[in-house]
Amino acid sequence: MKVLLIGANGTIGRAVRKQLERHEVVTAGRNEAELLVDITSPNSIKEMYLKIGKVDAVICAAGATFFGPLTELTPEKNEQSIQSKLKGQVNLVLLGHEHVNNSGSFTLTTGIIMEDPIVGGISAAMVGGAIKAFVESAAFELPRGIRINHVSPTVIAESIEKYGPYFPGFEPVSAYRVAKAYQKSVEGGQSGKTYRVY
Amino acid sequence: MKVLLIGANGTIGRAVRKQLERHEVVTAGRNEAELLVDITSPNSIKEMYLKIGKVDAVICAAGATFFGPLTELTPEKNEQSIQSKLKGQVNLVLLGHEHVNNSGSFTLTTGIIMEDPIVGGISAAMVGGAIKAFVESAAFELPRGIRINHVSPTVIAESIEKYGPYFPGFEPVSAYRVAKAYQKSVEGGQSGKTYRVY
Ligand SMILES: NC(=O)c1ccc[n+]([C@@H]2O[C@H](COP(=O)([O-])OP(=O)(O)OC[C@H]3O[C@@H](n4cnc5c(N)ncnc54)[C@H](OP(=O)(O)O)[C@@H]3O)[C@@H](O)[C@H]2O)c1
Ligand SMILES: NC(=O)c1ccc[n+]([C@@H]2O[C@H](COP(=O)([O-])OP(=O)(O)OC[C@H]3O[C@@H](n4cnc5c(N)ncnc54)[C@H](OP(=O)(O)O)[C@@H]3O)[C@@H](O)[C@H]2O)c1
Repeated sequence: MKVLLIGANGTIGRAVRKQLERHEVVTAGRNEAELLVDITSPNSIKEMYLKIGKVDAVICAAGATFFGPLTELTPEKNEQSIQSKLKGQVNLVLLGHEHVNNSGSFTLTTGIIMEDPIVGGISAAMVGGAIKAFVESAAFELPRGIRINHVSPTVIAESIEKYGPYFPGFEPVSAYRVAKAYQKSVEGGQSGKTYRVY
Repeated sequence: MKVLLIGANGTIGRAVRKQLERHEVVTAGRNEAELLVDITSPNSIKEMYLKIGKVDAVICAAGATFFGPLTELTPEKNEQSIQSKLKGQVNLVLLGHEHVNNSGSFTLTTGIIMEDPIVGGISAAMVGGAIKAFVESAAFELPRGIRINHVSPTVIAESIEKYGPYFPGFEPVSAYRVAKAYQKSVEGGQSGKTYRVY
């Protein structure tokens, strides 16, 4: 399969590359990737798809969100999450489905806090809830048997220095286990699913 | 209680006014309301709160969403839903919590399709999922005992001409039943809840 992996150099992206070694994986991201893309820009997404042509699977493991408490959350800070992890991922689907072969797939990324909230995670939780509902609708609206799922990781062991303090009492999982869920989505037959890696 | 009701002239808003007759309800909306507000504009929201001062409850029964299938959904059309029902409602909370008295409340609006999707409802479903997750986080992040819930109605009998064709096999509920859920949120003690009126 030809797989387009956005966010290929990230903690999750690198682990996913390893799991999908037997496929032709094309890496995408803002830096040091085969295809340079900024998912906050619809034009940049369109250019990426024009360059790559047709693919069998699109994986998004990219997307920034604002972390901080509600009392410090402004409309502007919330906008960072909306532009990147919410609209970035949604637009990868809206602008990309014509580039996905019959029975191909999309796999997006959410996170545990969409349903098990933490202090300071409200903006990211909001985005996760949006992507989950979007995926459940898209699953039967996508044409030509194209499937769509999302992976919802808890905090990842490899990211514990960065995110650990936000996740008291959450048991970390390995990036390897998270990557297995992306493999399940790409190589399996399911659609509309939440792959919880908790 | 002093209740700020945004979308007071809508199908839901009118029914909510009736349920809350024993309170001091201040109506808000884009037309023919005591306070004119456009929730797609953060400045307009700020001006509304400055005019009203302190309140005990904020209800939002306003918010537009794009209806149409995924294959016709463009980033621009999806933006209508994000600007109005998503960011409009979120910003009512972010910009409004300082205007809500101790132990006051917010009540937002989602809809059944966030978890029971319909063809053509993907953009609205996405917004509902976002608001649900936002509410569940905000419930323990809001200061001073301020509560927050959201009401998720199925299709309403009074709106059946407008929305009926999108909801085959969905049993309509009366606006009266939906309004009771807003009353429960305002007058009760719960927080972080989804009031399903299905
Ligand atoms: N790590 C965790 O513990 C964890 C847990 C739950 C959910 N998640 C979610 O998983 C996703 C990935 O997390 P991660 O920890 O792997 O992130 P990461 O290590 O920061 O990597 C993110 C990757 O995405 C790329 N990227 C960021 N913004 C982009 C943009 N606007 N356009 C294109 N590429 C962009 C980055 O590439 P460049 O550096 O080249 O820009 C980077 O390769 C995020 O949505 C995160 O919320 C992570
Ligand atoms: N009706 C249903 O069957 C149903 C079912 C599930 C969920 N819902 C949800 O419930 C909410 C209200 O639905 P409804 O049927 O009562 O709507 P509606 O009858 O169209 O009324 C909407 C009200 O909101 C106001 N409004 C719209 N956009 C606004 C903005 N940008 N700023 C300020 N006010 C604005 C309108 O005032 P002006 O006309 O003055 O602008 C109007 O009074 C929506 O979020 C809808 O998705 C409805």
